[in-house]
Amino acid sequence: MSGLIIQKYGGTSVSNINRIKKVAERIVRTRKTGVDVVVVVSAMAGETDKLLDMVRQISPSPKRREVDLLLSSGERISSALLSIALDNIGCPSISMTGRQIGLLTDGAHTRARIKQIDTERAKQVLKNKHVIVVAGFQGINERGDVTTLGRGGSDTSAVALAVALGAEKCEIYTDVDGVFTADPNIVPDARKLDRVSYDEMLEMASLGAQVLQIRCVEFCKKNNLPLIVKSSLADDSTGTLICEEDPNMEQPVVSGIMSDKNQAKITIKGVPDQPGIASSIFTALADESLSVDMIIQNISAEGQTDISFTLAQADMGEAMTIVKRVATEIKAKKVDSDSTICKVSIVGAGMRSHPGVASKMFEALSRENINIMMISTSEIRVSCVIDEKYAELAVRVLHDAFHLESESAESGISDGAQSA
Amino acid sequence: MSGLIIQKYGGTSVSNINRIKKVAERIVRTRKTGVDVVVVVSAMAGETDKLLDMVRQISPSPKRREVDLLLSSGERISSALLSIALDNIGCPSISMTGRQIGLLTDGAHTRARIKQIDTERAKQVLKNKHVIVVAGFQGINERGDVTTLGRGGSDTSAVALAVALGAEKCEIYTDVDGVFTADPNIVPDARKLDRVSYDEMLEMASLGAQVLQIRCVEFCKKNNLPLIVKSSLADDSTGTLICEEDPNMEQPVVSGIMSDKNQAKITIKGVPDQPGIASSIFTALADESLSVDMIIQNISAEGQTDISFTLAQADMGEAMTIVKRVATEIKAKKVDSDSTICKVSIVGAGMRSHPGVASKMFEALSRENINIMMISTSEIRVSCVIDEKYAELAVRVLHDAFHLESESAESGISDGAQSA
Repeated sequence: MSGLIIQKYGGTSVSNINRIKKVAERIVRTRKTGVDVVVVVSAMAGETDKLLDMVRQISPSPKRREVDLLLSSGERISSALLSIALDNIGCPSISMTGRQIGLLTDGAHTRARIKQIDTERAKQVLKNKHVIVVAGFQGINERGDVTTLGRGGSDTSAVALAVALGAEKCEIYTDVDGVFTADPNIVPDARKLDRVSYDEMLEMASLGAQVLQIRCVEFCKKNNLPLIVKSSLADDSTGTLICEEDPNMEQPVVSGIMSDKNQAKITIKGVPDQPGIASSIFTALADESLSVDMIIQNISAEGQTDISFTLAQADMGEAMTIVKRVATEIKAKKVDSDSTICKVSIVGAGMRSHPGVASKMFEALSRENINIMMISTSEIRVSCVIDEKYAELAVRVLHDAFHLESESAESGISDGAQSA
Repeated sequence: MSGLIIQKYGGTSVSNINRIKKVAERIVRTRKTGVDVVVVVSAMAGETDKLLDMVRQISPSPKRREVDLLLSSGERISSALLSIALDNIGCPSISMTGRQIGLLTDGAHTRARIKQIDTERAKQVLKNKHVIVVAGFQGINERGDVTTLGRGGSDTSAVALAVALGAEKCEIYTDVDGVFTADPNIVPDARKLDRVSYDEMLEMASLGAQVLQIRCVEFCKKNNLPLIVKSSLADDSTGTLICEEDPNMEQPVVSGIMSDKNQAKITIKGVPDQPGIASSIFTALADESLSVDMIIQNISAEGQTDISFTLAQADMGEAMTIVKRVATEIKAKKVDSDSTICKVSIVGAGMRSHPGVASKMFEALSRENINIMMISTSEIRVSCVIDEKYAELAVRVLHDAFHLESESAESGISDGAQSA
């Protein structure tokens, strides 16, 4: 069997007839290199939002089973259109829905998880040298009802199929050139990264990089599947390779700078400093499936303390209701909230072996008089919560401080003056 | 088990969110009469054409399998939306695709025929007192690929389900009040018919009445299923009942007047009057699946004759190519075509027992100096081909001549002056 490549095309790549034709041409070019191709498509850009908007006009709490049937139609439409476009330029192809590609999920409508992929029919079709165009984002549960995998789920469809079919790699086509050192809209000299490790990409995705769903990256890491993110709009896009760290290569200390304004902070003041108090707050939040990000507790004074934590801005209203209730129960003095904050983060696999990265970050921010409210770190990440108004400035300052505009400067940490 | 009613809603009945909500309310009202309801929906008006337009932009000859997957999405969307609307007003419901309702077809993509309906799951759902909202127009073939039943196929889905589930009747909701004695746009005093026999409806459908697909009426006749056509836009629409002729009731001599401008005439002049010549022409047309409607052959003079026939205007181009080729082979003199013709027809089950209907029709036309080019009849129909420019006039004249504006005048044939 010749090599197999999975190509996934996002909504902007198939947003109109001309782009669908371009995608068909790209697939034909890929096949000419002697490989088999399985394509996974998203709905045409805007379609899913249009359908969701109709649902909102009908019901505030639609049944998830019906929402899944509704939303799955967008990917079916684009897969049929792309298959027709392929046939039209002489490339034999067949569309396949989630059911036809054998993608079985659990029963959690609108956020189903893949349980199994039955590849029998797909393998038969590949043997006949047809390109398979799979409707992404969808599967079926054991009852035969349509399920969907959550926003960005087509990426997950693509990597799961790549593993199930033993593909050599998975290419994710989108409207950007790859993964950048920072958002080019904020940092004009942001640089496209040729290579990012799975762990770095996981951190970036969880910090709000829209380019890939976290589940998709986790899946690739677990199965050591090389993932390439590139643009379908430019023919010369080389993209970013997401793969295992190469133990023989020095890792960049800082690969990218991320900022996330969709954060909010809640502070509970005058909390009695007794065992079990913090737990009562965070258990109440967890019971409602609200994810808390960073937590700090001030040093106790006069038997009282202040507790602050951050969470997604979208969850703030619900969280405030809960926290106010608990605050009354535990006899805390006051609850404040602040949604004008921002989390700015640096990510880099090389941090593991380079101490001093965090302090360099703090220094750079303080030089611009940007106050750091909260800090959290992982092995390969440092995040600071700052005032939202400094978000763009902070990203630019850090991009400069770590010389990310220049490829060879990435590992320079002790010597801030190093340059290409 | 309580009674079961099938309600089918066409594209204009679900063309926007407000209409979908209205349909949900109508279903709830029907249920309150103590019956179970299974609903079949079409795609929202305009959706199917939008999808077909995209296909045309991609390929002149798209694969039918892909077209079916594409087109089936429209009905899936409206079934999910209507189910959400029902739940929102407290009516438990579940959407079902062609596959989920168990509608198995043959493999003829874009014009599949129903082979079998497996009603097991549907019966279970009805037992649980849920309304089923079926995506019309679609089924699956034995391979599990999506098939569609051709334009108007949702009507066929509805009546097939009605028979399979043992429904007491099938209601077809559309944007008109029912079946009329003539097109109200042409005849202002055209009257809605309360009752039409299967045979009359079959004639009317084949004469271009858009209100019902022929296959749907055939199916009802075969299974003696009462069919009601009514408007979903007016709450007080009583509709038209399509059912068996009542042997105890006198049938209307003429129930309706139809006109069809989508006709064309081809004339082959100077055909050698020898056995087998006509056959060679019509066999050649049949080989290309072109349906010929009426045929006349002039009386032979000097060993030569003229042959004229009519067919659908859309087929004329293709037919002319074939006829010209055959004309050369058989040494005919000339081939003419005319697309400015019209077929005007009268339909009525009472014709069987009332002679003189045809001559009354010819008289009425001749009084207006409308020349009749061709005539064809069935047991319950008389059709005349006339110049297209007289189409509306002819319909009005015949509507008057048979007094169709007045209910009790329908059986009056020998006495043209009879009136209500």
